[in-house]
Amino acid sequence: MYTEKVMDHFSNPRNVGEIENASGVGTVGNAKCGDIMRIYLDIDDNGIINDVKFKTFGCGAAVATSSMATELVKGKGIKEALQVTNKAVMDALDGLPPVKVHCSLLAEEAIHAALWDYATKN
Amino acid sequence: MYTEKVMDHFSNPRNVGEIENASGVGTVGNAKCGDIMRIYLDIDDNGIINDVKFKTFGCGAAVATSSMATELVKGKGIKEALQVTNKAVMDALDGLPPVKVHCSLLAEEAIHAALWDYATKN
Ligand code: FES
Repeated sequence: MYTEKVMDHFSNPRNVGEIENASGVGTVGNAKCGDIMRIYLDIDDNGIINDVKFKTFGCGAAVATSSMATELVKGKGIKEALQVTNKAVMDALDGLPPVKVHCSLLAEEAIHAALWDYATKN
Repeated sequence: MYTEKVMDHFSNPRNVGEIENASGVGTVGNAKCGDIMRIYLDIDDNGIINDVKFKTFGCGAAVATSSMATELVKGKGIKEALQVTNKAVMDALDGLPPVKVHCSLLAEEAIHAALWDYATKN
């Protein structure tokens, strides 16, 4: 049912945690399943995402997509990070079952919310 | 949204893992969200559940209910374990939001499936 990459990022999620005094924090909820996700960004003066961490109450698919999404935005500029879509994350994971696509939206939305938080602060 | 006990069992889930040569194994799926849960029971000659472990791809609510359910059945006899309902587990967790009740069913169903597996083998 799940690809090897999904199981890898689910079993060993990258970048789980919090960042104190983060440049931007995004919290989003999934109305369909009641899950929540929070992403912390550390953005330097050149607009580069130096560090990123996440926390979620979501399922394995939410954990795996967030883990992959944080890997994909790390080291990127803000514009590039905005182009890391839900679809790009799913492709990087070699796909997700259709019933789990809505879980993968949490990561994209949380990153956008965190970038928005950063933008409004700067 | 989530009680302290839910957050505790989600952050520090008890009895996560597998049991080799388990007396009974139960695997169930949740049609609503596509999540899966597996429970392993180690039952001694007196019919007492000596050890229990679980694995899930489910959300935080599934993790918390399974963790609590394994604590409630550990050390119990088979008949007592069958009385550990979904409702008893939710009560022990001080409740779950309505949208998450279907997640808590996974633990009860997986325990029943593992007990059934044990019964058919013995
Ligand atoms: S959403 Fe699938 S187990 Fe909770």
